[in-house]
Amino acid sequence: MALKISNSIAISFFLLLIINFSIVESSNKIRAHRPCKTLIFYFHDILYNGENAKNATSAIVGAPAWGNLTKLAGQNNFGDLIVFDDPITLDNNIHSNPIGRAQGFYVYDKKEIFTSWLGFSFVFNSTQHKGSINFAGADPIMNKTRDISVIGGTGDFFMARGIATIMTDSFEGDVYFRLRVDIKLYECW
Amino acid sequence: MALKISNSIAISFFLLLIINFSIVESSNKIRAHRPCKTLIFYFHDILYNGENAKNATSAIVGAPAWGNLTKLAGQNNFGDLIVFDDPITLDNNIHSNPIGRAQGFYVYDKKEIFTSWLGFSFVFNSTQHKGSINFAGADPIMNKTRDISVIGGTGDFFMARGIATIMTDSFEGDVYFRLRVDIKLYECW
Amino acid sequence: MALKISNSIAISFFLLLIINFSIVESSNKIRAHRPCKTLIFYFHDILYNGENAKNATSAIVGAPAWGNLTKLAGQNNFGDLIVFDDPITLDNNIHSNPIGRAQGFYVYDKKEIFTSWLGFSFVFNSTQHKGSINFAGADPIMNKTRDISVIGGTGDFFMARGIATIMTDSFEGDVYFRLRVDIKLYECW
Repeated sequence: MALKISNSIAISFFLLLIINFSIVESSNKIRAHRPCKTLIFYFHDILYNGENAKNATSAIVGAPAWGNLTKLAGQNNFGDLIVFDDPITLDNNIHSNPIGRAQGFYVYDKKEIFTSWLGFSFVFNSTQHKGSINFAGADPIMNKTRDISVIGGTGDFFMARGIATIMTDSFEGDVYFRLRVDIKLYECW
Repeated sequence: MALKISNSIAISFFLLLIINFSIVESSNKIRAHRPCKTLIFYFHDILYNGENAKNATSAIVGAPAWGNLTKLAGQNNFGDLIVFDDPITLDNNIHSNPIGRAQGFYVYDKKEIFTSWLGFSFVFNSTQHKGSINFAGADPIMNKTRDISVIGGTGDFFMARGIATIMTDSFEGDVYFRLRVDIKLYECW
Repeated sequence: MALKISNSIAISFFLLLIINFSIVESSNKIRAHRPCKTLIFYFHDILYNGENAKNATSAIVGAPAWGNLTKLAGQNNFGDLIVFDDPITLDNNIHSNPIGRAQGFYVYDKKEIFTSWLGFSFVFNSTQHKGSINFAGADPIMNKTRDISVIGGTGDFFMARGIATIMTDSFEGDVYFRLRVDIKLYECW
């Protein structure tokens, strides 16, 4: 009987060793690639061009030596820095009820083609969502889909991390574009 | 006896299955909402207005077409981009010994009300703290408290993640403001 | 026999308690400080100075009141905002085959000495690497090595977090610098 129990104990300790090893490694190795939360939003950007002050939701606030603040610069807008406060909607209709604001900035950062770098937040204060989701990353605009990082969140999105897939859903010349954003959170608290 | 051990093994393997399942899920599901580290700091921003070059710790470096670089723009400063290097203190006295610097930028990003978007770091190199804490997020300035994300850290704050709650502790017109920052880290390494 | 099995069960449940406690704590406490991935790259920045439009990979797009867009400002470039699209190479030779682009921005943010704040991405689309690594943090340029945060990643670098150690490998006046970046990822998915 003593032998049998000590056998059980031996087996259990052996398992414990394996399990503890797994736990220590888990912060590095074991990750679920299935999102813990998925969200889809659209946001709408109307760039100030000197004539649309009332409707504009964004403005050029930095430009290279060859640019100016009311027209996107030559060389694929390279160097233009835009600040924005864009309405977020649940569908692709700019007239739908906004459920939050996309706020932050982007820079056009390549001379040969349209690409940009984004730093911004989705800010929610509605019955549906309260809190914010923070984003950063490169946006190679000419690709059909582009992935940026969800680098944090607050409120309902406390400590969130994940990936946001951006698609240009529509655009009209230099003045209007609409982005669809598929957010997949892989860290939910 | 063989039967008894195999019973033990069966039970143990069953437990192992449960436990491993828990581990794989843990990166998604089980999170402690208690901070692993809490810190409170103040920082002090003196904006360059064309006449205070000696004392200024920040300057407007981007502005919309209707703005300029020595005065915050109309429409609630929308589009103004400010770069700063502000002293960090442990209390709310600007004359206290600075224990680090808050360095980075913010943009005012809404026409109807004061809001901003922040990207900056706390940089420490004292006996108390060595290393940096990196922040990003939306700051709806008119709210009493605002939460932004701690997106990373180095040195003493290696790999940190968390939430920073910002409060406007004081301000004087357009030239001076003091922020209180309550940092709660939920990931400590 | 019943007694023996219940002994085994008792021991196993006791172990289960310990283990579950470990799992709940693991998101806060148990972290491997050994990188799960290490990468070394160089990138090359040629700043537009009004005369090198063809070769320049970056441009000043914001400057303080005392600066301009073709020459870095007085007071250690304080307030200058630079947008860049720099080639990434595996060695320190600017003529080596670029394996990606470093894209984003930096601001010089201290009057007394050269320091900057960086927000950028490494963007890869080659046989070696596909995806992006996103960075943010303070860069006290005069230090031999500086640590910034890897705040996220996409593609091959899905959900990455870590530390990037930056070294100024070479520079020529105000126009050219080359940075070596040692990336250590501590979260790999």
